[in-house]
Amino acid sequence: MLTKNHYRLIQSLNQKKYRQNQKLFIAEGVKVVQEFLNSKYELVYIFSISDNYVNFDHKFVRVSNNELKKISLMISANEVLAIFKIPEPKKIDYSELILAVDSLNNPGNLGTIIRLCDWYGVKDLICSKSSVDCYNPKVIQSAMGSHARVNINYLNLESCLKLVNNKIGATLDGNSIYGSDLPSKGILIFGNESNGITTQVLEKINLRLTIPRFGEIKQIESLNVANAVAVMLSEFKRRSIEK
Amino acid sequence: MLTKNHYRLIQSLNQKKYRQNQKLFIAEGVKVVQEFLNSKYELVYIFSISDNYVNFDHKFVRVSNNELKKISLMISANEVLAIFKIPEPKKIDYSELILAVDSLNNPGNLGTIIRLCDWYGVKDLICSKSSVDCYNPKVIQSAMGSHARVNINYLNLESCLKLVNNKIGATLDGNSIYGSDLPSKGILIFGNESNGITTQVLEKINLRLTIPRFGEIKQIESLNVANAVAVMLSEFKRRSIEK
Repeated sequence: MLTKNHYRLIQSLNQKKYRQNQKLFIAEGVKVVQEFLNSKYELVYIFSISDNYVNFDHKFVRVSNNELKKISLMISANEVLAIFKIPEPKKIDYSELILAVDSLNNPGNLGTIIRLCDWYGVKDLICSKSSVDCYNPKVIQSAMGSHARVNINYLNLESCLKLVNNKIGATLDGNSIYGSDLPSKGILIFGNESNGITTQVLEKINLRLTIPRFGEIKQIESLNVANAVAVMLSEFKRRSIEK
Repeated sequence: MLTKNHYRLIQSLNQKKYRQNQKLFIAEGVKVVQEFLNSKYELVYIFSISDNYVNFDHKFVRVSNNELKKISLMISANEVLAIFKIPEPKKIDYSELILAVDSLNNPGNLGTIIRLCDWYGVKDLICSKSSVDCYNPKVIQSAMGSHARVNINYLNLESCLKLVNNKIGATLDGNSIYGSDLPSKGILIFGNESNGITTQVLEKINLRLTIPRFGEIKQIESLNVANAVAVMLSEFKRRSIEK
């Protein structure tokens, strides 16, 4: 049965400060929860209308349809909501291609970018401290479980850039990604949805890359940042297999 | 001043059947509205808190901040909301690369795909009749004005496929897009977010293409459809300039 304390805990975890204090986050829906259950994430509570989760013993809380609706953040609640511990991030492997986001705001975009890292085998994602929290429930839902396979650190980006030779920025005024030599390692940085990469970070970059437009009438200003990540990761990884 | 009739009209245009009956749609925010004003779309009404639009004479309706909030569908209303006429779609040019979506559900995805067509110079987008309406307000907002440069038709996909030789489908079991010869024209089809391309359409396809996964642990099932469109259009268009 859902107690008042459960309810209060779930509500609090919608806010970053409580997630950070308690080192807990929420995952929802059969698919996403299963991804975390299959991984090394430590389960704290699992709330469900279904018997499928009863073997989690004291961690399992049976809820009614109405209770699930009440605690769910989704438009249509889907069977299960779970609370997991936020793990300590692992050490970054600077000898590989690393993705970084600078002041990224939109949780849906960050989630999609985590999923893209997973797909393209990018193991480390660095977020500037000003970026949206990767344990925000909307990020969790749009990443669809890819958190389990991507190591995410919130760090000072300028300091990280000192540790690599190839500091690559996705900008609107760079060289065509199709015509440029692409290094197999380094940090590839994407900026904020409206303002791009911050000036301080931009100053440290030694390779600016752009996805060229193909439309005849060049009125469109930019691609959505997650789409830009998709195209650039595709190009970096394609080159790595064709070398 | 905002009248009851204006309010009723705007409310009705949130529903597909009224948009189709009245052949009208809503665009919001300075940037998006400006894109439509710069294009051949015919303005019907422009509601704004700002004097910037007073030269639209009888089409201009000054509204208060509260009135704008009331009519806006956005989380934070942005200065202006306009109603435009839905134009008749133009004839499709089957001698070029055409994008098609089969039963696409999510308005944000369709909007992003329209923006990608614009970026990559794909002039024709065909939507199966079961796909989300491209004049849905959420599609308009996420396409950010790219409607003005992409010709969108709602048609029976199977019939369209009869008109081209290259019927290309994005599937999870196809040949690697990186290793395949890609034709410079034909129809490139993307399916529904959960179920992919429908069986009837799949039967007509003569080239199945897949974006290969690079991650070592291959647990991630699929990419978001808009990201898959981004990667595939990038690959088709890159080849066209490198040929």
